Amino acid sequence: MTHKILVLPGDGIGPEIVAEAVKVLNVFTAEGNLSVELEYANIGGIAYDKEGQPYPDSTRALAQKADAILLGAVGGPQYDALDRPLRPERGLLAIRADLGLFANLRPAILYEELASASTLKPEVVAGLDIMIVRELTGGIYFGQPRGIRVLENGERQGFNSATYTESEIERIARVGFETAMKRNKRLCSVDKANVLEVCELWREIVEKVGKEYPEVELSHMYVDNAAMQLVRAPKQFDVIVTSNLFGDVLSDAAAMLTGSIGMLPSASLNSSACGLYEPIHGSAPDIAGKGIANPLATILSVAMLLRYSLNRPELAERIERAVKTVLASGVRTGDIYTDGDRKVGTAEMGDAVVAAL
Amino acid sequence: MTHKILVLPGDGIGPEIVAEAVKVLNVFTAEGNLSVELEYANIGGIAYDKEGQPYPDSTRALAQKADAILLGAVGGPQYDALDRPLRPERGLLAIRADLGLFANLRPAILYEELASASTLKPEVVAGLDIMIVRELTGGIYFGQPRGIRVLENGERQGFNSATYTESEIERIARVGFETAMKRNKRLCSVDKANVLEVCELWREIVEKVGKEYPEVELSHMYVDNAAMQLVRAPKQFDVIVTSNLFGDVLSDAAAMLTGSIGMLPSASLNSSACGLYEPIHGSAPDIAGKGIANPLATILSVAMLLRYSLNRPELAERIERAVKTVLASGVRTGDIYTDGDRKVGTAEMGDAVVAAL
Ligand SMILES: CC(C)[C@H](C(=O)O)[C@@H](O)C(=O)O
Ligand SMILES: CC(C)[C@H](C(=O)O)[C@@H](O)C(=O)O
Repeated sequence: MTHKILVLPGDGIGPEIVAEAVKVLNVFTAEGNLSVELEYANIGGIAYDKEGQPYPDSTRALAQKADAILLGAVGGPQYDALDRPLRPERGLLAIRADLGLFANLRPAILYEELASASTLKPEVVAGLDIMIVRELTGGIYFGQPRGIRVLENGERQGFNSATYTESEIERIARVGFETAMKRNKRLCSVDKANVLEVCELWREIVEKVGKEYPEVELSHMYVDNAAMQLVRAPKQFDVIVTSNLFGDVLSDAAAMLTGSIGMLPSASLNSSACGLYEPIHGSAPDIAGKGIANPLATILSVAMLLRYSLNRPELAERIERAVKTVLASGVRTGDIYTDGDRKVGTAEMGDAVVAAL
Repeated sequence: MTHKILVLPGDGIGPEIVAEAVKVLNVFTAEGNLSVELEYANIGGIAYDKEGQPYPDSTRALAQKADAILLGAVGGPQYDALDRPLRPERGLLAIRADLGLFANLRPAILYEELASASTLKPEVVAGLDIMIVRELTGGIYFGQPRGIRVLENGERQGFNSATYTESEIERIARVGFETAMKRNKRLCSVDKANVLEVCELWREIVEKVGKEYPEVELSHMYVDNAAMQLVRAPKQFDVIVTSNLFGDVLSDAAAMLTGSIGMLPSASLNSSACGLYEPIHGSAPDIAGKGIANPLATILSVAMLLRYSLNRPELAERIERAVKTVLASGVRTGDIYTDGDRKVGTAEMGDAVVAAL
């Protein structure tokens, strides 16, 4: 069976890092271990430049037929002055909505070899391994009504709506519990139910779904406390499940605890196992085109792709082991370099992973 | 002139820590340096127990006549099963709305003597001194419509509205700029303008108000990045101004960077200089009644009260200096104790500050 993978290199360092991730896929196809058909399309700023839209119809058509999507990054300062609907990040929001990618899995893992990169004390973060399950197609990101209106007194008022239905909460809760079942069986649902009605319903439904997973130890935490606890004692968490907006904030904070966001992948899944895989770092326009970006987060995103969309956990594990081998050998891109390591560029890092495979 | 101060000890450790803060006020009155009239009332769980409401009319009447309010803390597990409108935190939300306390000032200061309490590396947090200006009476906390409704398909949907008018943004922005003028003249406004229309308006108005403060260096940051940057390099910030919800999350994260939230006060101000002052830590039911809670955050809240509502900065500074003297002498409550310090209880800590005054 040949899997269709849509590759969306995007902006900034996107094309460079994606090229290295494709090298890794090519290893498996050359071995005869995997059959994939790669198609390329535009998203973000480059899509606006070439096709006038951040998520053009041509990309949409390919995305809807793909088994999985590998994305680099979107955005850059040259697009800041564009009208909001044309900006690169709108392409990202559009593809999430279009494909119903409601479950965003964002691991925050501290690699032993990179422990010193964290701004936190080693004993606080050593061995850190959290999975954040963020709802990605609902909540205030997509809620209606929204806009800027003029009130009777002539003043303008900006307004957005945070909404969740029972079924939206139920399906993301289920991903949270299933994820916890495969890990340490502890799930923390983060909300602000003491203030927001939408979170009251969230908590009620998460509790209800929890009844189906008696083995999972479920807890609830307010979002302000969760932000504190991530700083105070992050290792208390196994899996966190939360809304779109809270997940946006907490997953970035959690990622930064590791000190090496150049290492962290992500998966955005829908209900039919199609997924979009991307590094959590951005397009880094300041270093784009220099061949120095770290491709490991994108390579690890390929591992997630193999695990979640192509159901090839053994290939995923080979990539993850190869990355660890490379780190252990002291090979480093600039973002994770410390004295005594061997500093390499983007392509050399990709080659090192290929060699370790 | 005699200032009316309303004292709301509240729940848990509230009464104990407030008693120590009152000792400090008594020093100034005994010296003849200050004339205050203290009145006591109920808020939170104790108010529900005694008067059936978390913010009873009797308390409201006194609050509306007060020049300033000193609050301990609200909440406790015995109130968790109450109907939402009767819960302790509703008392807090109600007094904020009732008195129009729209500007919440939350300093995150790392005391040199307590540097080792932080989970972050010393070089990342040494000398940390951030002021977070959080909007406190608008946004999604109070936005209408809100609730849980039944959709046409029979499913329930939770919904909340995040709203800000131009004038609401303008007045909090002004507090942000004024605060920055008194400090290092750098203001970072945190929003999510790439996704939310309410934040688009926020950014536009903050920019506009900024024109009146050419000396202040204004920057904008998305909330997810702000959460990251607080972990990565918190000392880049001087003053942060943000919405009610983002301020709730970021101020707790910022506080935890210091590792000693038992030290951090807060002020919530309205447009007529009346303010509510409270420690940012909660009611700590687990240690309530044991005489071991740290009263310093409440004592430092009195310093803020003297500075912002009573316009007595010289008395505020005396308190702040006294607290530093006490810390330097090695006197510590359990929460900030490390080997070699002298461990004391709540009352002894209050007495130590009084002695240092
Ligand atoms: C670019 C932005 C719209 C996006 C989001 O807020 O979801 C990003 O921060 C992310 O987390 O993927
Ligand atoms: C208790 C709760 C309603 C309150 C808030 O969310 O504002 C608290 O977290 C705070 O920050 O003062």
